[in-house]
Amino acid sequence: MAMMEISVLPVGTGSPSVSRFVARALEVLGDAKYELTPMGTVVEGDLEDLLRLARRMHLAVFDAGAVRVVTTIRIDDRRDKPLTIEGKIRAVKEKLGV
Amino acid sequence: MAMMEISVLPVGTGSPSVSRFVARALEVLGDAKYELTPMGTVVEGDLEDLLRLARRMHLAVFDAGAVRVVTTIRIDDRRDKPLTIEGKIRAVKEKLGV
Amino acid sequence: MAMMEISVLPVGTGSPSVSRFVARALEVLGDAKYELTPMGTVVEGDLEDLLRLARRMHLAVFDAGAVRVVTTIRIDDRRDKPLTIEGKIRAVKEKLGV
Amino acid sequence: MAMMEISVLPVGTGSPSVSRFVARALEVLGDAKYELTPMGTVVEGDLEDLLRLARRMHLAVFDAGAVRVVTTIRIDDRRDKPLTIEGKIRAVKEKLGV
Repeated sequence: MAMMEISVLPVGTGSPSVSRFVARALEVLGDAKYELTPMGTVVEGDLEDLLRLARRMHLAVFDAGAVRVVTTIRIDDRRDKPLTIEGKIRAVKEKLGV
Repeated sequence: MAMMEISVLPVGTGSPSVSRFVARALEVLGDAKYELTPMGTVVEGDLEDLLRLARRMHLAVFDAGAVRVVTTIRIDDRRDKPLTIEGKIRAVKEKLGV
Repeated sequence: MAMMEISVLPVGTGSPSVSRFVARALEVLGDAKYELTPMGTVVEGDLEDLLRLARRMHLAVFDAGAVRVVTTIRIDDRRDKPLTIEGKIRAVKEKLGV
Repeated sequence: MAMMEISVLPVGTGSPSVSRFVARALEVLGDAKYELTPMGTVVEGDLEDLLRLARRMHLAVFDAGAVRVVTTIRIDDRRDKPLTIEGKIRAVKEKLGV
């Protein structure tokens, strides 16, 4: 189980508002486990699935009308123990004592 | 008002667990408005403040014992209307109809 | 034709030097057109190929002995005209007048 | 001595071409040591200087007419030995045997 953060950005759309494009990208996620953040989307899954979803999210922005798309992806992948959205947040909060 | 996502990563620490370092970086945030995500931290503020916090978070990882630190920052800055953590999430959810 | 920048980073290796891991990741590129930069690798190709190479580069870092890998990817994809390594650099230099 | 990779991206400009904005951002670099890559700019310097340059590059994109700017920054900072553009490339090439 790995984790991916992805942010899709249409370029040259004529309006600085991009939420319409982001919403289209999120629709492809189906029943994948994800969390929407103010700067992107975090998805849990195995590496193969994550990259397949990244490809579909990126393409969805073209489908929504963009002619240029810049997609930023960060993958955190750990083989010694499972990575989960809850587990990562909990580990930091424990160290903070909150 | 802009928004920054930041992720600090110690390199070469001997353990794949990094939450201790992340917690130290979060301690410098004081009363800045931030949100912890599974892949980083999102902070609201003006550009000057955000970059000053980024510098301090990065340095906190050295203070915690790292000898090499890779910090990833993404800044979203908009001059036609305010950007807020709640506003960005709400805009996407409205488009999704949720 | 799209373009990808990718940076692979092993976490918890015990040494701040990572060039050995980066070299292993580059070996999977075969005859893809790429350019090594001081902060990553830029590869030209179609989206499908780029994501397949990203997956293989990421996995190569595990093969080289890492137990945790953080991979950062940025994809620039444009449908109105071809994106090439030379073309992107040239466009900026022309605007700079150099 | 640290190293920063920075990419500035105007959002909502009405044209998918952004090289004009990138050129304006590069003009603020003055005599800093930098290298233009197909996906961004790599700058050498100490942390304080790098973040000051990042701020100025980001603001230059607004000066060039953008109303929204997304800037991506990655900082690699190492305290056990100096990081240089040439040194990082050379270390990887040596491991590759080229």
